[in-house]
Amino acid sequence: MAPKKPSRVKARQPRGFVDRTSADLLAQERMLGTIRGVYERYGFEPVETPFFEYTDALGKFLPDSDRPNEGVFSLQDDDEEWLSLRYDLTAPLARHVAENFEDLPKPYRSYRAGYVFRNEKPGPGRFRQFMQFDADIVGAPNVSADAEMAMMMADTMEALGIARGQYVIRVNNRKVLDGVLEAIGLGGEENAGRRLTVLRAIDKLDKFGEPGVHLLLTSGRKDESGDFTPGAGLDEDAARQVLGYALVSFDDEDGTSEDDFADWMRIVGDSKSGADGVAELQQIAASVRAAGYGPDRILIDPSVVRGLEYYTGPVFEAELLFDVVNEKGQKVQFGSVGGGGRYDGLVSRFMSTPVPATGFSIGVSRLQTALKNLGRLDAAPRSGPVVVTVMDRDRMADYQRMASVLRDGLNPKGADGAYLGPALPVEVFQGNPKQFGKQLQYADRRNAPVVVIQGGDEKVAGKVQVKDLVEGKRIAAGIEDNAEWREARAGQELVDEAELVTAVRAILDRHAADAESAGR
Amino acid sequence: MAPKKPSRVKARQPRGFVDRTSADLLAQERMLGTIRGVYERYGFEPVETPFFEYTDALGKFLPDSDRPNEGVFSLQDDDEEWLSLRYDLTAPLARHVAENFEDLPKPYRSYRAGYVFRNEKPGPGRFRQFMQFDADIVGAPNVSADAEMAMMMADTMEALGIARGQYVIRVNNRKVLDGVLEAIGLGGEENAGRRLTVLRAIDKLDKFGEPGVHLLLTSGRKDESGDFTPGAGLDEDAARQVLGYALVSFDDEDGTSEDDFADWMRIVGDSKSGADGVAELQQIAASVRAAGYGPDRILIDPSVVRGLEYYTGPVFEAELLFDVVNEKGQKVQFGSVGGGGRYDGLVSRFMSTPVPATGFSIGVSRLQTALKNLGRLDAAPRSGPVVVTVMDRDRMADYQRMASVLRDGLNPKGADGAYLGPALPVEVFQGNPKQFGKQLQYADRRNAPVVVIQGGDEKVAGKVQVKDLVEGKRIAAGIEDNAEWREARAGQELVDEAELVTAVRAILDRHAADAESAGR
Repeated sequence: MAPKKPSRVKARQPRGFVDRTSADLLAQERMLGTIRGVYERYGFEPVETPFFEYTDALGKFLPDSDRPNEGVFSLQDDDEEWLSLRYDLTAPLARHVAENFEDLPKPYRSYRAGYVFRNEKPGPGRFRQFMQFDADIVGAPNVSADAEMAMMMADTMEALGIARGQYVIRVNNRKVLDGVLEAIGLGGEENAGRRLTVLRAIDKLDKFGEPGVHLLLTSGRKDESGDFTPGAGLDEDAARQVLGYALVSFDDEDGTSEDDFADWMRIVGDSKSGADGVAELQQIAASVRAAGYGPDRILIDPSVVRGLEYYTGPVFEAELLFDVVNEKGQKVQFGSVGGGGRYDGLVSRFMSTPVPATGFSIGVSRLQTALKNLGRLDAAPRSGPVVVTVMDRDRMADYQRMASVLRDGLNPKGADGAYLGPALPVEVFQGNPKQFGKQLQYADRRNAPVVVIQGGDEKVAGKVQVKDLVEGKRIAAGIEDNAEWREARAGQELVDEAELVTAVRAILDRHAADAESAGR
Repeated sequence: MAPKKPSRVKARQPRGFVDRTSADLLAQERMLGTIRGVYERYGFEPVETPFFEYTDALGKFLPDSDRPNEGVFSLQDDDEEWLSLRYDLTAPLARHVAENFEDLPKPYRSYRAGYVFRNEKPGPGRFRQFMQFDADIVGAPNVSADAEMAMMMADTMEALGIARGQYVIRVNNRKVLDGVLEAIGLGGEENAGRRLTVLRAIDKLDKFGEPGVHLLLTSGRKDESGDFTPGAGLDEDAARQVLGYALVSFDDEDGTSEDDFADWMRIVGDSKSGADGVAELQQIAASVRAAGYGPDRILIDPSVVRGLEYYTGPVFEAELLFDVVNEKGQKVQFGSVGGGGRYDGLVSRFMSTPVPATGFSIGVSRLQTALKNLGRLDAAPRSGPVVVTVMDRDRMADYQRMASVLRDGLNPKGADGAYLGPALPVEVFQGNPKQFGKQLQYADRRNAPVVVIQGGDEKVAGKVQVKDLVEGKRIAAGIEDNAEWREARAGQELVDEAELVTAVRAILDRHAADAESAGR
């Protein structure tokens, strides 16, 4: 032990940031590959923007409009310019498209996965750095592009192994919401605050039911703990109208929902925005139904609001319908794993022409957690390394040469220098070699299939010990006596050093055959 | 055109940050996959840390010690804590290992690729966000681990298609440098500044040759433009001693370099650190030579200094030896694409026990540029999308259904829901469909192999036009007359809608066969 230094730094992480380990990353890689596969089959191509943007280029579109300057990590750089870390992948894409407008094919189909940052109080399952996986079509004026987004998200869920019935893509339209609000006299800039209260109330229909939402729309609601949420102050007629809108179910069996759309048309009344919105949703429903996506997969849903302020038309939400137990021990539906919508104004913030666009964003960590719950996150277990142990620390060069020979022998390359098979890792034990037992513990810990041992006697004889750790464990399970164990030298064989690769490969082949016959 | 808005934001990026497009990202993905393949075959596993760390946990180890607080992006979060964006991947790994020390296997072999950030003035090829790909062994006291790092880097270069002779891994030891400086009386805290001047002078041997470095070590050097660089003020003996150290070449044919090591031992004189360093390098040389890596691949080199302040022992540099033309039009060696070294103090900043470690970091963008120069960056070109065109905008649902049928038909799935073959993208044209010519231009732009067309007449007849764009171009090249062209309907055929998938697949198969017979 070195003397304790007085100025030692504590190894710790800021709240809301996490390290990610091997199994997690390998599973994520597989998941992202599957998503990418679906997006590519819809004609999308990757594009990536950097983590920083000029603060004004990002704009302020985060949901919590009570704190307009917060939620974003910002700083001044060496040039005294204000930069912000991206809080989503949509605002930077809009900047990218505007900056390169003439050089891009239109419509422009692109995808990107990457971390985004929110400078917020973290909570359970709520991080300050998290990954999103987005796909967008820019330069697509027709809502058939929104329909395509919804279908692609349904395909993505199924490609990931989420069965039909376990997910639904909910679709709504901001224009319809605007139309309803206009119809009850809440149009105009002066009613922005009350509109938000009404939208938040609608969003709670699942949670509080019709009576609870009625209270939130009118006089306010007191919860069980006595906390009071102020209401939107609507009169009875207006509240009924909003509830009338929110209670339309759109789940008739033929999927056309003609009566439901007619109800909505009546409720939005004279609002042009509202009527446009309903007609757009009808078009979307027609498109997805014609392509074979029923209301069990893509459902029109009045409760979808989406917080981000840049949406201008159809909005989507991908929800998982199976139950999980939350941090309070309650059984709840898993819920949203992503969403998106049309943002016709975002690119044209930078331009003199309107540039219609629609997109979808998957919350990668949420989705990964969901797949874990469903048992669909099977990252294929990789082989542990063959470990060349160190009996004599002065002969490190020998052991390193052995490892090198084994590595090359077990991992053949083609004429172009690329490896032909799966990775079979080989390593020399690089820790302190003094206690040999620790080396075997390490091999065990790393799930090593084989260890290689060469002491001085073996060296002189040109031999090497090859120990099958899987076989060794199997035999050990049947041996109770220590002496008997040493005698059996379970799973261990002495081979010519020249035969090292052959001997190790034979053991690995045997393990592979055993695994296959065991159906793994 | 919408009316010009007065408050329009300019679409632009902060200097030193760049967007990355499809071909670049696909090539990078392939390159990272190859590197990962090598690291995994050496028994390394992925681990990832977040972008932010507490500022004190990162420490200040950037080369430019004249500006200790700069070079790093830092900010205060909602909790008034100082956070910094990582400037490399080593300091965060040290924090991770210290925080999870008991749970990790020792030695701990890990790799990670990710962006790092420097708050510096950007320049040509110098960015404020760039990617590194690191591998580290923590808990490895012996320099055989450093030898392994050097070998793994040589393997990585060759796996990427960089031929032997086009690269070299240079190895030096900070202890030897310290020993030389001690031997000429520059030990101790009070000489830190002069030591740095001497190290920078050694670093310039390639550039200025022996006379130039002699000036930098003594009285200072005036360059052609008249700019004066102050010297380290060494006397003639000391300067000769440093040059004696720096001019040892280590390129004798047998690779043992016994005489060279003996020269160094003499130069470091009584310095224990120096003698230890030379002995360590001898061990490294013995290890790599025994494993078959000659001085053409791994070379001891006095000029390797490495700027980062946390290195404590062996240091490496991966250099590419072929010539490129720089931004001034001069022919220069491509130079460094990565480096690393032993950092025995970095983890133990957090702990009461010493934790020896060594690692290597590849500069991903630099390496990608190098591979591009070598013509070794062959991202396999992917197929463009089959484009379903829109003749009648009221029938979007029809076109979308066709695209859906084609997509499913061309991309069959296995029983587990995973795609079986490579991606064959299919998309509906989602732009404004008014001018049909623009749709064909788009298809051409996207490198579409096939477009699908269905007007009203075809719809009534249950037919669809399938147009082979590759064949079409071939025929078009032989047709000069516009009328003749229309008559030939180059590469276009009318098929039953029920035969759509079969017809398109036949064309794609034909293209694949043509490509194969053309040797692509």
